Amino acid sequence: MRSVLLGLGISIDGYIARRDGSVDFLFMPKDYSMASFFAGIDTAIMGRKTYDVAQAMGGWYGPKMDVYVMSRTLPAGERNGYTFTHQTPEALVAQIRKNKGKDIWMMGGGELVREFLKADLIDELYIGVVPVLLGEGLPLFPGGFPQRDFALTENKTFSKGLISLKYKRVRGKSRKAAKH
Amino acid sequence: MRSVLLGLGISIDGYIARRDGSVDFLFMPKDYSMASFFAGIDTAIMGRKTYDVAQAMGGWYGPKMDVYVMSRTLPAGERNGYTFTHQTPEALVAQIRKNKGKDIWMMGGGELVREFLKADLIDELYIGVVPVLLGEGLPLFPGGFPQRDFALTENKTFSKGLISLKYKRVRGKSRKAAKH
Repeated sequence: MRSVLLGLGISIDGYIARRDGSVDFLFMPKDYSMASFFAGIDTAIMGRKTYDVAQAMGGWYGPKMDVYVMSRTLPAGERNGYTFTHQTPEALVAQIRKNKGKDIWMMGGGELVREFLKADLIDELYIGVVPVLLGEGLPLFPGGFPQRDFALTENKTFSKGLISLKYKRVRGKSRKAAKH
Repeated sequence: MRSVLLGLGISIDGYIARRDGSVDFLFMPKDYSMASFFAGIDTAIMGRKTYDVAQAMGGWYGPKMDVYVMSRTLPAGERNGYTFTHQTPEALVAQIRKNKGKDIWMMGGGELVREFLKADLIDELYIGVVPVLLGEGLPLFPGGFPQRDFALTENKTFSKGLISLKYKRVRGKSRKAAKH
């Protein structure tokens, strides 16, 4: 089954962006490549606020793929290379999975991540931790979802102190106090 | 000079404890040892709320060392193996550094971590990341301090998916937008 991968860069204190949405701190050392990550996916999902930030930064600049924007306010339908949808996370993921394909990239932001975690739709985490404490910003994991256990599957360090961590969701495991 | 080390275990989403203060999720696999960490320190500092939680859990159970409890409300002085103080973080650290000794362990909690980061007193981070998203809890890094840059100095993985990350404070470096 096509997995949903949450893939993002964060600060040590867990922010995906500064308060104003800027992501200048997510520098990309030359030896860090997203190529293998991108090779495994063909679909991306983002929230409306993340879409707004991406548009303000000049629009989509990743590899060509199906890109869904989840919004309650924007009209549904395909426009400018994006598919806007009012579906719930469960419905959208189920619809995408009806067709064969590669994995699905959940791009954020935090509010949508919370909804996906509530629905237990995140299968893997691909987190790049940048060696800075920002002190404030937009969190990758805003509170408000049940406990979810994971297994660490990979970690790699890169120049300039970036470390990438991969985790896989462990379901049906009852770690202590997983009573949520 | 005696360094101040912030050393704590956290969930992937950055919590040092559940909302009620419980830390059951910070399991300790057999191959994970704090021995080398403890060998380098002889002094610990904690906030009053962390002290309360430690007391509720049966009191200090780490190696013997000087333990300071920072509190605005409890009377200052030595009692039951703790030294209670009303000093500011700067004053306390300066006083400890007047004597020769090993490094200083900043044990939290988050509110005190914020004060130490505001004063730029944290020299190193020793973070053990437990492979779970809690969804809510007490954060290690509550917002409200200026940007602080670090360098990754070590990472080690252990059984059950624990990964420990060590960072060293990089001062005087102006990464982009370090305008705080």
